[in-house]
Amino acid sequence: MFEVRATDLAGRIGKLKMRRGFINTPAILPVVHPLKQIIHPSELKKIGFEAIMTNAYITMKHYGEEAKKRGIHSILNFDGIIATDSGGYQVLEYGELDTTPIEIAKFQEAIGSDIAIVLDKPTGLNVSRKYAEETVKATILASKQTLNIKERKALWVGPIQGGKYLSLLKSSAKQMARLKFDLYALGSPTLVMENYDFKLLVKMITVVKQNLPLNKPLHLFGAGHPLTIPLAVALGCDLFDSASYILYARDDRYITSKGTVRLEDLYYLECSCPICSTHTLNELKSLDKIEREKKIALHNLYVLKNEINATKQAIEEGRLWEYLSMKARSHPKLWEAFILLNKYYRYLEDGTPLFKPRALFFFNYIDQMRPEVIRYNERLILDVEIPLEREILILIPEVDYNTLMRITTLHKRLDEYLGINSKKIQICFLSYPYGVIPEELADLYPLTQYESSLHIDTQIEVLKLTLKRLNKFLMKKAFQKIILVNNNKFYSPLIKMLQRKIKNCVIIDAMNESISKIIDKIANQIIGLKS
Amino acid sequence: MFEVRATDLAGRIGKLKMRRGFINTPAILPVVHPLKQIIHPSELKKIGFEAIMTNAYITMKHYGEEAKKRGIHSILNFDGIIATDSGGYQVLEYGELDTTPIEIAKFQEAIGSDIAIVLDKPTGLNVSRKYAEETVKATILASKQTLNIKERKALWVGPIQGGKYLSLLKSSAKQMARLKFDLYALGSPTLVMENYDFKLLVKMITVVKQNLPLNKPLHLFGAGHPLTIPLAVALGCDLFDSASYILYARDDRYITSKGTVRLEDLYYLECSCPICSTHTLNELKSLDKIEREKKIALHNLYVLKNEINATKQAIEEGRLWEYLSMKARSHPKLWEAFILLNKYYRYLEDGTPLFKPRALFFFNYIDQMRPEVIRYNERLILDVEIPLEREILILIPEVDYNTLMRITTLHKRLDEYLGINSKKIQICFLSYPYGVIPEELADLYPLTQYESSLHIDTQIEVLKLTLKRLNKFLMKKAFQKIILVNNNKFYSPLIKMLQRKIKNCVIIDAMNESISKIIDKIANQIIGLKS
Repeated sequence: MFEVRATDLAGRIGKLKMRRGFINTPAILPVVHPLKQIIHPSELKKIGFEAIMTNAYITMKHYGEEAKKRGIHSILNFDGIIATDSGGYQVLEYGELDTTPIEIAKFQEAIGSDIAIVLDKPTGLNVSRKYAEETVKATILASKQTLNIKERKALWVGPIQGGKYLSLLKSSAKQMARLKFDLYALGSPTLVMENYDFKLLVKMITVVKQNLPLNKPLHLFGAGHPLTIPLAVALGCDLFDSASYILYARDDRYITSKGTVRLEDLYYLECSCPICSTHTLNELKSLDKIEREKKIALHNLYVLKNEINATKQAIEEGRLWEYLSMKARSHPKLWEAFILLNKYYRYLEDGTPLFKPRALFFFNYIDQMRPEVIRYNERLILDVEIPLEREILILIPEVDYNTLMRITTLHKRLDEYLGINSKKIQICFLSYPYGVIPEELADLYPLTQYESSLHIDTQIEVLKLTLKRLNKFLMKKAFQKIILVNNNKFYSPLIKMLQRKIKNCVIIDAMNESISKIIDKIANQIIGLKS
Repeated sequence: MFEVRATDLAGRIGKLKMRRGFINTPAILPVVHPLKQIIHPSELKKIGFEAIMTNAYITMKHYGEEAKKRGIHSILNFDGIIATDSGGYQVLEYGELDTTPIEIAKFQEAIGSDIAIVLDKPTGLNVSRKYAEETVKATILASKQTLNIKERKALWVGPIQGGKYLSLLKSSAKQMARLKFDLYALGSPTLVMENYDFKLLVKMITVVKQNLPLNKPLHLFGAGHPLTIPLAVALGCDLFDSASYILYARDDRYITSKGTVRLEDLYYLECSCPICSTHTLNELKSLDKIEREKKIALHNLYVLKNEINATKQAIEEGRLWEYLSMKARSHPKLWEAFILLNKYYRYLEDGTPLFKPRALFFFNYIDQMRPEVIRYNERLILDVEIPLEREILILIPEVDYNTLMRITTLHKRLDEYLGINSKKIQICFLSYPYGVIPEELADLYPLTQYESSLHIDTQIEVLKLTLKRLNKFLMKKAFQKIILVNNNKFYSPLIKMLQRKIKNCVIIDAMNESISKIIDKIANQIIGLKS
């Protein structure tokens, strides 16, 4: 029912199949009001939205039996996928609902919802733990009651509540995981995102995902913001619903790839959607409120669609990490969330392909902790065996294709020079992005397939982490002598640090030296060792 | 003739007026072929391009007298601004031209060019210094000859050549500055940008701008790339010409905000321009070559237009630095260029407004070196006088509005406690973004108007630079005693460092303490001092 086609980090491009058809994920479901839509669902379909969400409770209160007769697709005049929210969220705003989980569940089935949601009790953000526990209990009870209903044709969503209490979210997810839902959803209190508390969002999503079956999609409630979507997708969210496109428009807020701008603060249209390419900014600003709201809402939808597509393109290219890192420079609070990701290595590494079509990008020490690099270092320490007889380590900075070619020459010539003694030599590359790379591994992806500014923008953290990785390697295999070949000025700071911190090591000055000269110097060190 | 309306860094939003009308800058001028245009100039006008560029030499060779009779606007059926290139660039590809500077200059005047370019001798990139010097000489000679022509109605562009030889560019600019051109242009060898050598581009643009009159626009030849434009605008380039939109399309390359993608590597359309919102990706890929080329070219134009507008919006918001920093995470080579900017502080500070409508963003140590911060520190050291009698320095981490309020209370209560001795106290804030902020300055923009992740992502460089700034402040004014109030866990690493490096200082543990308690502790330190 849920096919995953491509992954990067914990993000996945998938296909959620159901009776009526399917949704390509990740996807945003625009929220529409069952009674009156500023943008009609048929327009949403034209724009490219395969699925929308509406409110079952309001539908039931207003249409009642008529809705059961006609069906929700007829009422909304939309033949794509319709997800119905139980109305649980209304509770946060309007207080108790006049219905029960079973009643609203049967109603959603009766009106032909393709995706239906249990009548949950949303936790909200600034509530006591005790209250949060109650909402989790109530939601689980409602979930069990709902799943007891025999005639179920819709795909059913199990909502995970718990607010900001991570341990509650965890136990809520564990319990809900035992119930046979088709999808799960995370209640992300809108306040989290209004406060740009992306760090908390990272923690919430990961604790829930790590306790739910991975083969079921996860829906993130109410997350229609260009900064939230890529991060949430990378953490494993597959579906989003959003009324933001209309709520922002109502507030004269125009969505960009970086956030939102008040129309009065907008001077230039940096978008070419059907609205922005057919109106000047002044024309837009001069429209009457109702017309303006509709047009900005349309523009907002296009931007959100673009954001989903840009994120999917990044997954296909294997560049989701890079895309997040760029997005994270839109706001310091998003940056704080991004740098938290390296703590979830194991969770993110799983979906990160071993081979990607493109080079990896490295900008600063955070990129030295990206999944591919940690994975490489784990395998280096756990799986790679350096033959015992190799007592001498030759460390050469950086690796690129040219250096690889020269090193092959280097090794051959050392063989000629030293004869049988060349068996005592292990050549490794020193690499700011990766750490230590034994010569034999150097042509494995992505060890030479990268672009990096670490050697230009070399922060102390970069040096320290590289040194730490070298130390780990040296703890794995002790060498009698370490020869540092200083042939790259960008590695001089590292080499100086190594000289201070590592025993038994000697530096060979090789700046601009020919291969012959370098071999002479290395050989001298080695021969000198024998005597 | 060139009015500047808004600035940030060295970028400016302006209006270049001429006979026929005006161009809003920054602006890209799409290059069109005088004989056959894939996208007709009238379509370019509809898209929103006020000005285009075409080739005078090809026009002359092909149309000859007819061009003089009809005029270039009639030939291209475009009534906006037309800039004509002399054909100098053809030399790099086709060898010598069959014309002279005076002939092609008179021709450009005769056909009614709004903006005309001297027949220069482009330097190119991988050439000897000697050859580069010749091209500079030839260009200056041609410039003088051109400016001798009496009947000149067009705006004339003086091309600055010199290739990658910065000293040559400097002398070329100085000499050209003495000639009365309306605009200048920098020959940026396309190889610079093809190699993504943005660092070299930064050096080339700045050396030239620093030797040209600032009130004349600068045109950057051949720079139609989404990564180049924001950087070049920030450095002071006002005009761009680009055939890239069509050259990329011819090569099935699709421009995005991050660079270009081959159509075959594109899986999702992250754009909603009139082309992308009316075709599926498969439809686009299936078009025959000619139709596909045209449509991708149109899409490319929309993206370039969006890029110019996004850059202009950033200038209006005073967020050009932030925009560059985000863009720079698109490619490590662009990041290398971005971190170079802090070396051009004085050049970039001039156009950076003292007051901006928004908060500043800080992500890492590079942002501690942005113009507003260096400017603040210069003024702190040069202009601010701390009264001599203030012998005691109280350092309190971070400043935000709440802290400000509490500190006002703190100071009042210290006054009550210590009486006349409170005159001996100077309260300063310690701030990762800014350094040291005397209490009296704290409500000046932008000292509290910022968002920062420096306290979360605290690299050693951040600590060191803050310490350096504190030391500079202490060299300006010596204090008998320094009291560090440790009330912010994020500043503990800094305070530990300070304790080791700064004499006469004592730490007061104030984590979660009430104001009263903190005052007690401070007062004890001070009274203890008296005895």
